[in-house]
Amino acid sequence: MKENPTWFLKSHPSGMPQTDNWDLRDMPIPDIEGDQLLVRTQWLSVDPYMRGRISPAKNYAAGLAPGDMMRGGGVGEVVSSNSPHFAPGDIVTSDHFGWQSYTVLPAQSATRVDDTDAPVQSCLSYLGMPGMTAYFSLLRSGAPKKGETVLISAASGAVGQIAGQIARIKGLDPVAIAGTDEKIAWCRELGYRTGINHRTTQDIVADVAEACPDGVDVFLDNTAGPAHDAAMLNLNVNGRVVVVGTIALADRFDEPDIGMRHLRQIMIKRACIQGFLLDDFEADYTTAKADLLSWYRQGLLKTREDVSEGIETVPEAFTRMLRGENFGKQLVRLD
Amino acid sequence: MKENPTWFLKSHPSGMPQTDNWDLRDMPIPDIEGDQLLVRTQWLSVDPYMRGRISPAKNYAAGLAPGDMMRGGGVGEVVSSNSPHFAPGDIVTSDHFGWQSYTVLPAQSATRVDDTDAPVQSCLSYLGMPGMTAYFSLLRSGAPKKGETVLISAASGAVGQIAGQIARIKGLDPVAIAGTDEKIAWCRELGYRTGINHRTTQDIVADVAEACPDGVDVFLDNTAGPAHDAAMLNLNVNGRVVVVGTIALADRFDEPDIGMRHLRQIMIKRACIQGFLLDDFEADYTTAKADLLSWYRQGLLKTREDVSEGIETVPEAFTRMLRGENFGKQLVRLD
Repeated sequence: MKENPTWFLKSHPSGMPQTDNWDLRDMPIPDIEGDQLLVRTQWLSVDPYMRGRISPAKNYAAGLAPGDMMRGGGVGEVVSSNSPHFAPGDIVTSDHFGWQSYTVLPAQSATRVDDTDAPVQSCLSYLGMPGMTAYFSLLRSGAPKKGETVLISAASGAVGQIAGQIARIKGLDPVAIAGTDEKIAWCRELGYRTGINHRTTQDIVADVAEACPDGVDVFLDNTAGPAHDAAMLNLNVNGRVVVVGTIALADRFDEPDIGMRHLRQIMIKRACIQGFLLDDFEADYTTAKADLLSWYRQGLLKTREDVSEGIETVPEAFTRMLRGENFGKQLVRLD
Repeated sequence: MKENPTWFLKSHPSGMPQTDNWDLRDMPIPDIEGDQLLVRTQWLSVDPYMRGRISPAKNYAAGLAPGDMMRGGGVGEVVSSNSPHFAPGDIVTSDHFGWQSYTVLPAQSATRVDDTDAPVQSCLSYLGMPGMTAYFSLLRSGAPKKGETVLISAASGAVGQIAGQIARIKGLDPVAIAGTDEKIAWCRELGYRTGINHRTTQDIVADVAEACPDGVDVFLDNTAGPAHDAAMLNLNVNGRVVVVGTIALADRFDEPDIGMRHLRQIMIKRACIQGFLLDDFEADYTTAKADLLSWYRQGLLKTREDVSEGIETVPEAFTRMLRGENFGKQLVRLD
């Protein structure tokens, strides 16, 4: 009987991460001290940004070293609390969960989850980081005007599924890029006008041109790779490209990304290529969450989860998400 | 005795343009009709954007075909006029001059030049397109804040020489990239704090890092190529890159530009890469010209011209400018 199974990084991946880049070890249930909470994990989120955290290169923050415990977003129930703000039985979310069954959280990293509105794990998808990423990357960084064509890569993923629906709500014309015909079909159900299967297309540039006969005004780039080229080569004058993620580079993260550079196209089209980090919009999280919740309550946000069962499946869930084998927001449910 | 020597495009260049891509033919001095002026050319401007016009690929506008007369910016004296707004003897500038001794201009393309302020050819450099390009690309697209580090490629060129001085006037910290030690020395005279010789550096990324110890806040990219990489790899959070020109690609203009792509860097740094076209700022040309003239009168704008003599030298002046062999704004003076 395991007490507190916990995943540690064993080695920096070379190329595409494999499950053997991690070690599962049983750990004692930790004691809390200071302003901490002990939380029993119910849901863990695996997200593309974690690819950067396990790279030896410096990304937003210094990465993890072999031997470090993995951390990420989660939801769980407070078991014991040193904080006056939380009591046992409270459901909390934080981006500081360990990949483990019992985790210690600094109280100030935790937010109470109100499960009367939506399933608790929603705070890891459409009411949390991915939903707010979709919201701010599209509506702020993309600065779309009514009727404009918005191309979205990884369109059925955690960010893309919400972005496409927000685009529809706001009177934009969303077009999907995704990796299977089933994903494209689901994107249409969400309100995407049409979609391109980037794994089966013979010519993604021509297919984007056909799908976007008036050109691309805004491109939410969740992937980099060929979708980026296709968007760049179909960009309208004053087109905006928001670089949200680079998951297509997951298998060559620590190598230079060599490919077509689009500087002449950027110049000729007076395009703006803008990098995105959610943290920059923290002052407006409350507004974003209220809008997302309101749309959800009105039935305007469909969502899809891909749920993997059990703490032992976290690296598998993470790596299949990196390979695009998930369908919807990838989560792990713990017993 | 030649009547009206005129340059025609003979062939689209393959790679770096050569003087034999053009034909010099004697033409009759044309008659004017409608609202036209006949103008005796005094100065012609050769500019990097013309590389795009002689490419078979579509750029801003449809390009020239073999057999077409070359056109560009110029200054000359009105010989005869069908327009009530111009009289023989007036000095006018236009971006519709032919590469020829006598040219016909639509009157609405011409602007009278006031030579009491500055030499007439100034309207082809610091008081005209290159000066206004420097002004708007730095102050509007670059949106610099006082004290920020501004890296400028082709720093001694027609745009760069003005941009560096505007940066100094505005309390910024300009750093030059140029192609000879003499150019770097002159950039320092203009007010650039320091500079990097991109032709002799062993490691332009490291040299930019050393020259910009606080990182690069704004990069005015007049060249593309290795200077672009060096700027990208030294960019600060919220750094801005303004893509003004791509002269480093002059020898492979119709090929894909393959190289390092910086999407992860753009994302991590929340950088903005913005394409620039002067036409977009037309509503504010008057303000820009007034500022530039005022700085010139106050002795705050030094400028340097590289003058080639005679109509027969235009292709040579153009191609040496593309190779970076000019020193300052490249002009051609006609007899």
